[in-house]
Amino acid sequence: MTVKMARNQHVIILVEPQMGENIGMCARAMLNFGLTELRIVNPRDGWPNGRAVAASSGADDVVNSAKVFKTVEEATADLQVVYATTPRHHDMIKTTYTCAAAADRVRQEGGEGMRVGVLFGCERTGLTNEHLSRADALVVIPTNPDFDSLNLAQAVIVWAYAWFMTADNTPPAVQHMGKSRPANKDELNNFMDRLEMALDESGFFTSPEKKPGMQHNLRNTFTKMELTEQEIRTLHGVIKALQFPQKR
Amino acid sequence: MTVKMARNQHVIILVEPQMGENIGMCARAMLNFGLTELRIVNPRDGWPNGRAVAASSGADDVVNSAKVFKTVEEATADLQVVYATTPRHHDMIKTTYTCAAAADRVRQEGGEGMRVGVLFGCERTGLTNEHLSRADALVVIPTNPDFDSLNLAQAVIVWAYAWFMTADNTPPAVQHMGKSRPANKDELNNFMDRLEMALDESGFFTSPEKKPGMQHNLRNTFTKMELTEQEIRTLHGVIKALQFPQKR
Repeated sequence: MTVKMARNQHVIILVEPQMGENIGMCARAMLNFGLTELRIVNPRDGWPNGRAVAASSGADDVVNSAKVFKTVEEATADLQVVYATTPRHHDMIKTTYTCAAAADRVRQEGGEGMRVGVLFGCERTGLTNEHLSRADALVVIPTNPDFDSLNLAQAVIVWAYAWFMTADNTPPAVQHMGKSRPANKDELNNFMDRLEMALDESGFFTSPEKKPGMQHNLRNTFTKMELTEQEIRTLHGVIKALQFPQKR
Repeated sequence: MTVKMARNQHVIILVEPQMGENIGMCARAMLNFGLTELRIVNPRDGWPNGRAVAASSGADDVVNSAKVFKTVEEATADLQVVYATTPRHHDMIKTTYTCAAAADRVRQEGGEGMRVGVLFGCERTGLTNEHLSRADALVVIPTNPDFDSLNLAQAVIVWAYAWFMTADNTPPAVQHMGKSRPANKDELNNFMDRLEMALDESGFFTSPEKKPGMQHNLRNTFTKMELTEQEIRTLHGVIKALQFPQKR
């Protein structure tokens, strides 16, 4: 498939990952959010790894273009800023960012033309203090403190999502109309008139003094439904069918 | 393990999931962000499923307390608001929220005491139009449009993270000091004085007219490092060692 490069993207660096499946899942997670540059430090099962390709579910290009290094030092040599993800704060003189705050910084640094990398440790032990000492800052994903161990690919996708969101401009809510359009008030009023007339004929309004209140309630019910023009036409048909049942 | 219940949490509903591993990974993802209430509609491989427990990596309680239903109708019968996650907009008259916007709504609805559920479709085909018609609104996770297929547990963890973040109050950045504290300016100034004196003695400032500029640059370098009191003590030792090497 064609990989559409995200602008100003950064490098994901997996440090001593164990299972090929996890590497493939990381590649898929990266590509879901437009990241394509993967580096791997000292993968346990060697490289290339067929299981990584299989688990990437189509993100083959990310897996196949991954670069392998022997050490974190080599994997970060050309980078100007390095972040290290870790499940908790360490007794270390270093700034720790939340995932979202670090994502903002990485987006900005990328925009300034900096080469940035984010380190993820191995499944079992995470990053060592030696690895962390090579990072400019730490990134902690806020989690349930009683269950804070994220699967490797799960940590990568949360990071990638947080980074993607720093530049996403999807409208928060969109009212889909299908092939129709929102009804105007004239269409709504015509429908309400018809409904009320039909209900009058059917003896729905038993007490004249309660009729206005019942009318208001019904109008509220149908107004808040944000009906489309097509839905109102369907509802006209519903009333007609109920009023004048067709014999089959 | 003890499961700490998140306040005002909602129900995650997996609809016809195929692999037990994925169900277990979903449970782990949920618990990472404090969600514990899992429902499963018609799991392909039956229930209980040992692979789900194994893949949950300790979130056994979430797996073991999951409730199984035959249909989406039954699984949502006691809920007041239902959201359906889907990779793309549908030709359907329904409001579509981004993941973050829906998470805000679910948090608020939970706070109002509403019972809320979020549907996730099966790995292969997602949710059907019949499933979607039972949801009050759709949720779309913004992704790379060229590669928008998220693994089931990956979709669940992104959702759970987005929901968790609506109530997370972790400070965006924390400067960790280890057992030390930020140096005060007096400590920094003493260090700079010592450094400049040592450099004077070593003949570092070759040209008197350039000396003030070089002093400012050095002061900038050490000031922006945000040194701790302990780091300054170490740096005093570094200067001393360089000036007066000890024979071994």
